[in-house]
Amino acid sequence: MKKLFAEFFGTYWLVFGGCGSAIFAAGVPELGIGFAGVALAFGLTVLTMAYAVGHISGGHFNPAVSIGLWAGGRFSAKDLIPYIIAQCVGAIAAAGTLYTIASGKAGFVIDNTKAGAFASNGFGAFSPDGYSLQACFIAEFVLTLFFLIIILGATDKFASTPFCGVAIGLGLTLIHLISIPITNTSVNPARSLSQAVFTGGEPLSQVWLFWVAPILGAIVAGLIYKNLLQNHNEK
Amino acid sequence: MKKLFAEFFGTYWLVFGGCGSAIFAAGVPELGIGFAGVALAFGLTVLTMAYAVGHISGGHFNPAVSIGLWAGGRFSAKDLIPYIIAQCVGAIAAAGTLYTIASGKAGFVIDNTKAGAFASNGFGAFSPDGYSLQACFIAEFVLTLFFLIIILGATDKFASTPFCGVAIGLGLTLIHLISIPITNTSVNPARSLSQAVFTGGEPLSQVWLFWVAPILGAIVAGLIYKNLLQNHNEK
Amino acid sequence: MKKLFAEFFGTYWLVFGGCGSAIFAAGVPELGIGFAGVALAFGLTVLTMAYAVGHISGGHFNPAVSIGLWAGGRFSAKDLIPYIIAQCVGAIAAAGTLYTIASGKAGFVIDNTKAGAFASNGFGAFSPDGYSLQACFIAEFVLTLFFLIIILGATDKFASTPFCGVAIGLGLTLIHLISIPITNTSVNPARSLSQAVFTGGEPLSQVWLFWVAPILGAIVAGLIYKNLLQNHNEK
Amino acid sequence: MKKLFAEFFGTYWLVFGGCGSAIFAAGVPELGIGFAGVALAFGLTVLTMAYAVGHISGGHFNPAVSIGLWAGGRFSAKDLIPYIIAQCVGAIAAAGTLYTIASGKAGFVIDNTKAGAFASNGFGAFSPDGYSLQACFIAEFVLTLFFLIIILGATDKFASTPFCGVAIGLGLTLIHLISIPITNTSVNPARSLSQAVFTGGEPLSQVWLFWVAPILGAIVAGLIYKNLLQNHNEK
Repeated sequence: MKKLFAEFFGTYWLVFGGCGSAIFAAGVPELGIGFAGVALAFGLTVLTMAYAVGHISGGHFNPAVSIGLWAGGRFSAKDLIPYIIAQCVGAIAAAGTLYTIASGKAGFVIDNTKAGAFASNGFGAFSPDGYSLQACFIAEFVLTLFFLIIILGATDKFASTPFCGVAIGLGLTLIHLISIPITNTSVNPARSLSQAVFTGGEPLSQVWLFWVAPILGAIVAGLIYKNLLQNHNEK
Repeated sequence: MKKLFAEFFGTYWLVFGGCGSAIFAAGVPELGIGFAGVALAFGLTVLTMAYAVGHISGGHFNPAVSIGLWAGGRFSAKDLIPYIIAQCVGAIAAAGTLYTIASGKAGFVIDNTKAGAFASNGFGAFSPDGYSLQACFIAEFVLTLFFLIIILGATDKFASTPFCGVAIGLGLTLIHLISIPITNTSVNPARSLSQAVFTGGEPLSQVWLFWVAPILGAIVAGLIYKNLLQNHNEK
Repeated sequence: MKKLFAEFFGTYWLVFGGCGSAIFAAGVPELGIGFAGVALAFGLTVLTMAYAVGHISGGHFNPAVSIGLWAGGRFSAKDLIPYIIAQCVGAIAAAGTLYTIASGKAGFVIDNTKAGAFASNGFGAFSPDGYSLQACFIAEFVLTLFFLIIILGATDKFASTPFCGVAIGLGLTLIHLISIPITNTSVNPARSLSQAVFTGGEPLSQVWLFWVAPILGAIVAGLIYKNLLQNHNEK
Repeated sequence: MKKLFAEFFGTYWLVFGGCGSAIFAAGVPELGIGFAGVALAFGLTVLTMAYAVGHISGGHFNPAVSIGLWAGGRFSAKDLIPYIIAQCVGAIAAAGTLYTIASGKAGFVIDNTKAGAFASNGFGAFSPDGYSLQACFIAEFVLTLFFLIIILGATDKFASTPFCGVAIGLGLTLIHLISIPITNTSVNPARSLSQAVFTGGEPLSQVWLFWVAPILGAIVAGLIYKNLLQNHNEK
């Protein structure tokens, strides 16, 4: 139970901090933090929660990570569903808090005909810079695959050190530096779901891609790591 | 006594570096560091002072942190008042130094009818991007709550390693990446007090929120951590 | 064989992440990550792969690094050619993936008459900010020389700690902060080759400089480190 | 002798990377790295050289640091002059390399009537944002004082760990985030000298302030740390 609370809490912070920085601070004229600031914010949510609660639950905060770790033989199948539920509930709770705060600014409204509204993910007309479904699928697949390779590798070698949080968090920052213009960056089905639920419209009907592509990428990463890269002497 | 001097020194640096970067460097045309640079500066003040004097006083530099650690059972009640006084004195001394330096530029004046003047915090008409009192209260409450969860978690697990300073400092950076447009970011009553004292006017009369919301968030975090997350086996 | 796969994988990620951030995210109006974001992305590719697969292959991901380590007496001559081939194949595979994703945006075309097209390196008319061949040669030589000094020094002293990845990755970030306007920054012959292959034209015929200058810099660094800086007591 | 070579090498890199990023990359339209990128570059030069050669010479790369460590009882008086000479020679050699590369761009000329020309430091009319001599003196004094507190504290507690380089390097980044608009940031007499020598004119005649203020700040820091903060039990 403490594990599920840690996953709830960590995913809440990932969405509150990552999507919150995008909603409140990215586009402020002159002084705004831009895509680079949002990328840093997403990474730091994971880095900080890895220190705060990572030792309790393992610090997944992302259904694709839980599934990839399971595919790589590091996480038990019976914990998958409870973890994913805790992550999605945490993400939606965070999106609700973001909605409440955002509503405190005069004239706030979520315009779901616009790409990236309320930090939602999308492809085609809803890709921030107009990338096709196919391009978005490949990007999410490749990026989640490497995200899991980083996680599997870092926790393989440095499992008992606090370095994992640094490498994994900054890996998520890197992923956002590459791909915010493509899909607004998901690699995390819970983060996509929570923003889509509050945005509705076309972004909500596109949310399937941000479950399918990251999860496939994560599974392939688990298999690659287990079969080609894992240091069997150490395990 | 050495502890109080360390808190004075660390809080001086937090305000000098964090608020100083906002006052001197954020808004320079073309080359200015923007909100992201200020966010990084605030975090690095804590990171660097955690290394420099953290081993002396624990490295709070923030009344809400001292109170949250007390609520979490990590800090003794009898040290609370002296710590908070040392922090406020350090913050005000730093704001005075900032005022002296800023006065060395021709035409300098603090216009306290403008949101964020002299790096002050504010809500409503004094929120940098126009967020309501309620939105600002929720933001400060949630952000301080998570700041304390990060601190309690990092010092629970990695108490004897220098990683705490990295996680906690970068946590403060993350908090600023999210919320400068909302309240100009406090999560630290001493930092709010020092800038309000020199700014006066409406920002000074709004300073109560930046004592109440962060302290409440910190107390709730202490209770949550102690009861739901703490690793009892390790303590 | 596992080593070569690790080098393939790591160099793929270096090119996908570093050049990808330049292609997709650097120049987006208002919100783009700029040269600083690209610099951070390149560094984080190395930092993350050092954690993920660095313990398998040593984490070179760069022919100049392999050659410099050989010159410094840290890498065997017989592994040089296989490593360099794996790195080049990984880089080209990544450039191919980038090409596929970029093609998913309407109107995409590589204009190889423009400096920096498809993240290619260049000098003279193909230097992003118009630096001469000689200036570009000196810059690449000096920067690769220092990159290898950082690598040789960090792995000399902290070989068994995960700090190497942080220092080396952030060293690559620093190198990009200095020199993107000069050559679009190579210090890595594989990264230059892969982008030149897809760009063609003049950038392809200039790729020789980004093999010669980095490799010479790396060899000189190996000799300097071995003869002037190495801590013989520790080895 | 190896120590002096390490100081030469490290200070060369500090000036080449820090001032180089300012000269080449800060002001590029749209994509330039701005003051925040330069701040990061300066910090990373120290972070990377601390890993590379810090274990040889202690990694000062700055006359004020050597003098502050001497004032704090951590560095012997007899090594002061050789270290300072090695640092100044390294800095000037780097400025010469920067001059050679910069000359490779058509139309390059150092306009020494302009504040910050060739990354030089200055006050009054030569302060980037127009701060008075007094304001610049206070800023350099306070910033160098805290820089030395960070160095003395980090090396007191974590002397045998590689964390020092991270804290000290990021401390230098923080200092630049605050003060580039004030003095173009020195806190390092060698870095000021090297740029002034190539700039000439008024910036050269102002270089005295960037020796006096940092060195005074460093000495005061050494005395404060030794008498008020040092952990005598640990030494």
